[in-house]
Amino acid sequence: MAEEKKKGITVKKEDDMAEWYAQLCLKSELADYAPVKGCYILRPLGYALWEKIQEYFNKRMKYRGVQNAYFPLFIPESFFKKEATHAKGFTPEVAWIANRDEEGSERLAIRPTSETIMYDSYARWLRSWRDLPIRINQWANVVRWETKATKLFLRSREFLWQEGHCVYETNQDCDREVELFLMEYKDLCENLLAVPVLYGRKTDKEKFAGADYTMTIEAFMPDGKAIQCGTSHNLGQGFAKAFGLSFQDKNGEASIPWQSSWGISTRLIGTTVMQHSDNRGLVLPPNLAPNKVAIVPILYDQTRDIILGKCDQVKNELREFDPILDDREEYTPGWKFNEWELKGVPIRLELGPKDLEADQVTAVVRDTGEKQYIKIKDLKSAIPEMLALMHERMFKKAKQHLESSIVEVRNLDELNKAIEDKRLAKTYFCGEPECEDLIKDKTAGATSRCIPFNDEKAPKGSKCVHCAKEAKWNIYFSKSY
Amino acid sequence: MAEEKKKGITVKKEDDMAEWYAQLCLKSELADYAPVKGCYILRPLGYALWEKIQEYFNKRMKYRGVQNAYFPLFIPESFFKKEATHAKGFTPEVAWIANRDEEGSERLAIRPTSETIMYDSYARWLRSWRDLPIRINQWANVVRWETKATKLFLRSREFLWQEGHCVYETNQDCDREVELFLMEYKDLCENLLAVPVLYGRKTDKEKFAGADYTMTIEAFMPDGKAIQCGTSHNLGQGFAKAFGLSFQDKNGEASIPWQSSWGISTRLIGTTVMQHSDNRGLVLPPNLAPNKVAIVPILYDQTRDIILGKCDQVKNELREFDPILDDREEYTPGWKFNEWELKGVPIRLELGPKDLEADQVTAVVRDTGEKQYIKIKDLKSAIPEMLALMHERMFKKAKQHLESSIVEVRNLDELNKAIEDKRLAKTYFCGEPECEDLIKDKTAGATSRCIPFNDEKAPKGSKCVHCAKEAKWNIYFSKSY
Repeated sequence: MAEEKKKGITVKKEDDMAEWYAQLCLKSELADYAPVKGCYILRPLGYALWEKIQEYFNKRMKYRGVQNAYFPLFIPESFFKKEATHAKGFTPEVAWIANRDEEGSERLAIRPTSETIMYDSYARWLRSWRDLPIRINQWANVVRWETKATKLFLRSREFLWQEGHCVYETNQDCDREVELFLMEYKDLCENLLAVPVLYGRKTDKEKFAGADYTMTIEAFMPDGKAIQCGTSHNLGQGFAKAFGLSFQDKNGEASIPWQSSWGISTRLIGTTVMQHSDNRGLVLPPNLAPNKVAIVPILYDQTRDIILGKCDQVKNELREFDPILDDREEYTPGWKFNEWELKGVPIRLELGPKDLEADQVTAVVRDTGEKQYIKIKDLKSAIPEMLALMHERMFKKAKQHLESSIVEVRNLDELNKAIEDKRLAKTYFCGEPECEDLIKDKTAGATSRCIPFNDEKAPKGSKCVHCAKEAKWNIYFSKSY
Repeated sequence: MAEEKKKGITVKKEDDMAEWYAQLCLKSELADYAPVKGCYILRPLGYALWEKIQEYFNKRMKYRGVQNAYFPLFIPESFFKKEATHAKGFTPEVAWIANRDEEGSERLAIRPTSETIMYDSYARWLRSWRDLPIRINQWANVVRWETKATKLFLRSREFLWQEGHCVYETNQDCDREVELFLMEYKDLCENLLAVPVLYGRKTDKEKFAGADYTMTIEAFMPDGKAIQCGTSHNLGQGFAKAFGLSFQDKNGEASIPWQSSWGISTRLIGTTVMQHSDNRGLVLPPNLAPNKVAIVPILYDQTRDIILGKCDQVKNELREFDPILDDREEYTPGWKFNEWELKGVPIRLELGPKDLEADQVTAVVRDTGEKQYIKIKDLKSAIPEMLALMHERMFKKAKQHLESSIVEVRNLDELNKAIEDKRLAKTYFCGEPECEDLIKDKTAGATSRCIPFNDEKAPKGSKCVHCAKEAKWNIYFSKSY
């Protein structure tokens, strides 16, 4: 068929990852470019992945005592000015509303993040230690007026995310939960997306505008670039002071609380796609895939009805795996195999006359392409096992790539070579923002990714990879998206 | 306690419904005013109701073959101009972005509704009859630059909604599903919200800007005002022609498809609150309530541990009803009773020393305040029965109000009286927009609500309630939100 050729991806992942990625997102119908610069469309398959992430994370948040809410899209300009560092960080990329109610009335921004609009309300709601902790999350669209080119899921002017915003009595409570939600993100990446991550602290240069410190999870792509996948910030008391949050503590004294915020976005979809997929199309991790199984009948006139009946029975038995039964008349089995490979369905079940005779199906797993024959009566127990093994294989493969990419470097030459070799450089660093800028300039764009969790301090006497002054941190550097 | 008085609503529903409603929404912590004109905050309880609506309707949409997706917030100005009636209807209330990439580049609107941005993509995606029907929905925020005062949930510059956008081969297919989704909305109101509705066609004056016709569901509030709760539009081929949608039909010919759109919003929350709640607070319909049960232990020193243990056991047994166990030390049982009444929890279970002796709980249903004693071993079967009865009572009561409010009128004087009496006037109407404008002016703001489904045509020889020319429609008029 004419359609068949058009569908395939025309470049190889190993040859041109950027082009491969763009074609893959478009042709698998995950996403499409929008007629508005810097924006893109989450098509049903892409949005279904976001819904799976929401479903997983809503459960985890509920377990952690977080409640969902929704705050306005618009933020008064004066709110940004209240916390100076925050304002400085976000102002360049804010989109503004042209409408004004009266001449000279305040400008309204479209939220790039919601600290300011939420904490203004928190200040009105918070009275007593009994009201603490506050743990509120919102699922929302946010806008950042990027000037760089759009990269589907990874960089766009509008994207979808969740932002959690918590308030605590003490800094210790705050610290503990900044770490807690970081670990929730790490677990989500590992358990749902089969994506291993580095995790730890951001440098002062890379931390969130207005935070005391930022924790991050970082995935590492096959082309040697890292993706920041989620961040969890200890905001200290800066926003609380700026927005007038205070509470009566257990001793009856007025006290200023401590705050945190944490977020993940539709970036996670791009990360997962880039991490696992291949030249035939998407490889969706089984726990994320909206449909775990596609059933393709192999039809001949004589056995057609009986095979379709059998397929229906299989579909019904496997309904907990949201199977697709592709009984469309107008496409060949071969076309359908390509289609469901392109769309990343974890397991394809083929059922033809020979299978019928043996009361079996031919099962093909998406990641390895391996074929096996499974008795129909065994399917219901075999499928979850195959899915679990597939998840393990995908995670292990990605983890092996991450770990084997790490190389220890001690000076700028070694760092340069590591970056050229698409590696993840582990080194010592003084922590100075200026030094970090120079490292980026003097290499092919190496940026600090994170100071590893529980292994933060550089050994006594170690030297910064760039300035050779005494090092403060163990750290990872690499290129990044 | 000092808190106790502050919490109560200080006016009666029957005396000042507007003030009662505002206090109720704020004090029950459903919502709060935002520091941005025309906007409000959905607090966790309010947002939880929206999530229940989403959960219910996502299931129904999936059953109807609808897929969720997400399109950009921004719409190029030129898109609005493509469909003239649509542009005329929406332009006055559009919010615009101030940022421009270059001098003279096109203005961007914030979506007031997404027909235009979605159909631009549909035109690129649609090729063949095999691609039809398209049924895509998005859950999104939309912005309409209202100049009237904000009414929580009912009128605001930003609100949350779902918008379904379908494409069909024939007008018959389109008609059928315009009705189908209208009926889904009616069922949602009845089954989830216990809100009865009138349903039928809008007049030409009231139809959606750009639609061939609009179907609506209308609830009727205790103060004699209707609320438009959801609409389903047959868009004909107007948008398809404007945006260049066409497909190859089964005969190989180029053909123009037919389109529909349909939406419900956070208005449904306000409607439900106003319909059922009372002077003690929210009365949430059981199927909508996020927590169906609140357990309040009555604690004395001697029996404290054993009662708390029993309450824990009850909570665990009833976990499918998402019970709240209110074991807070710092509040009295009386304060807690008020709190959960204010917040509309359908069933309150009290457990004190006397209950303990009899191995029972004291159960109080929110709508009637009726008390019953239930053996702990019977609770698990008694609760769903009590909830089902409560739903029935609430629906019946609201339906009785709706039906007993209908009065047939034959001239403007009778219509005027009906409106003054807070009734819903059923009458005959010529269908002319000018006549409809005059009716609004000459009465205390009566507007047409709907032409009743399956009973549209006025009897032969009947006269329009206003101009006395030959009537075309049976119709309902009332005041409205």
